[in-house]
Amino acid sequence: MGATRFIETLVLSLLLLLSGSSATQRKKTRAAPRMPCKQMVFYFHDILYNGENAKNATSAIVGAPAWGNRTILAGQNHFGNVVVFDDPITLDNNLLSIPVGRAQGFYLYDRKDYFTAWLGFSFFFNSTQHRGSITFAGADPLNKTRDISVIGGTGDFFMARGIATLMTDAVEGDVYFRLQVYIKLFECW
Amino acid sequence: MGATRFIETLVLSLLLLLSGSSATQRKKTRAAPRMPCKQMVFYFHDILYNGENAKNATSAIVGAPAWGNRTILAGQNHFGNVVVFDDPITLDNNLLSIPVGRAQGFYLYDRKDYFTAWLGFSFFFNSTQHRGSITFAGADPLNKTRDISVIGGTGDFFMARGIATLMTDAVEGDVYFRLQVYIKLFECW
Amino acid sequence: MGATRFIETLVLSLLLLLSGSSATQRKKTRAAPRMPCKQMVFYFHDILYNGENAKNATSAIVGAPAWGNRTILAGQNHFGNVVVFDDPITLDNNLLSIPVGRAQGFYLYDRKDYFTAWLGFSFFFNSTQHRGSITFAGADPLNKTRDISVIGGTGDFFMARGIATLMTDAVEGDVYFRLQVYIKLFECW
Repeated sequence: MGATRFIETLVLSLLLLLSGSSATQRKKTRAAPRMPCKQMVFYFHDILYNGENAKNATSAIVGAPAWGNRTILAGQNHFGNVVVFDDPITLDNNLLSIPVGRAQGFYLYDRKDYFTAWLGFSFFFNSTQHRGSITFAGADPLNKTRDISVIGGTGDFFMARGIATLMTDAVEGDVYFRLQVYIKLFECW
Repeated sequence: MGATRFIETLVLSLLLLLSGSSATQRKKTRAAPRMPCKQMVFYFHDILYNGENAKNATSAIVGAPAWGNRTILAGQNHFGNVVVFDDPITLDNNLLSIPVGRAQGFYLYDRKDYFTAWLGFSFFFNSTQHRGSITFAGADPLNKTRDISVIGGTGDFFMARGIATLMTDAVEGDVYFRLQVYIKLFECW
Repeated sequence: MGATRFIETLVLSLLLLLSGSSATQRKKTRAAPRMPCKQMVFYFHDILYNGENAKNATSAIVGAPAWGNRTILAGQNHFGNVVVFDDPITLDNNLLSIPVGRAQGFYLYDRKDYFTAWLGFSFFFNSTQHRGSITFAGADPLNKTRDISVIGGTGDFFMARGIATLMTDAVEGDVYFRLQVYIKLFECW
């Protein structure tokens, strides 16, 4: 009798402990399989202001080195140019598709001897399908494909973390480029 | 006998519960209650340099599109303006209250057809009450209230993650604005 | 008797299991020991373009307040200057050592009454030793040592989070500085 009650108490205590711990655990070992908890693919389209396309432009040079200006990307692989953008996000690679959100933020060119960039931007969604934002940051070596970090999110993407694989899907001179963004979240709440 | 079987069943249930909880490591379901581990409310005050307020100004335009300059915010909803700031943080909405820290970083306006911004900044504290920093990043649609991400922290806010709800508490022309920042951390170490 | 002992053993095992799992709960208390899962020390070297060192310069002023320009750092503690950089990373404090990666991104000076900065940059590695990136952000009070946040990573540093302790290891006028970066990751996958 006494033993049974003692055990019941222990078991109950254990259950309480468990309900506390089950809510939250953390460090994964590297051996653990890396399965994204969410995957999405989007495209975004950047049309850079060049002095003649004020109506269509979705981005503009706002910083330049001493040897540059804000209408034409600077020499030396655009080193030092800072570009602010507000680009439409689409589900396919067609610039004319109905946007599902906006890619907003900045990129800067940071290397003299070949093209590399650094990006800080967010995907901002406000539709029936997605509501909230995903924020990205990181170095972009401008290889065929490259990863940057997903550093946070809000709304539907509350506390998101992960990586995004960028692929330049099209380039037209210095005026237009289109990026494919394959988002893989590894922390979902 | 009956007691032993009862206990075995309980122990098995516990083991199952445990194996269940190990599956919920890191990946939280959306059903889980989202209780912040830390909540704080602050205000910060931004006085933009306009050519005449060099003494009081806490921020300055440092980037502008080709059609803008660095003394007056550009047309088209300030699209392309980049502003660097070092703003006092107060506990209430009074600009003259004793600052408890500094809000430091930048914001940029990134949309032509209406106001939106992108922010990268930190709250920096060095007082008896708080020591350390909280870093924020994200798109700011400039709605009545909007969320951005808390992407990191140091000192008292070591490894912090969460969201911050911004509310524009006051605006005076293009020179002064005050933001209320309601910080909700969901990862505290 | 035997049954009770068997149960005690089981319960004890469960308790041990629990204490194991409770150690890896997400929300860490401040009392918990903070052991980095990875530690690394690097140096990086910044040579700022000053109008005369185009060949050697690894960084350039790209933003300035109305009272500044892009060749000379502005008065008032360089408030408002934005600098884009692509700096070599070395394992020791010798500028001429073979670089093991590049530090890429930007810093900005954000205070009028003394030096403080805000940084957004990545360490980019593409060698046999390290492949991938680590991204940093945060306020830099420019004290002797100061911490900024590690907000993400890719490749070998997939999903990294932690802090980095910066120490200015050398300064030569407004042209050259060298930072020691002691990276401590607290989330490793």
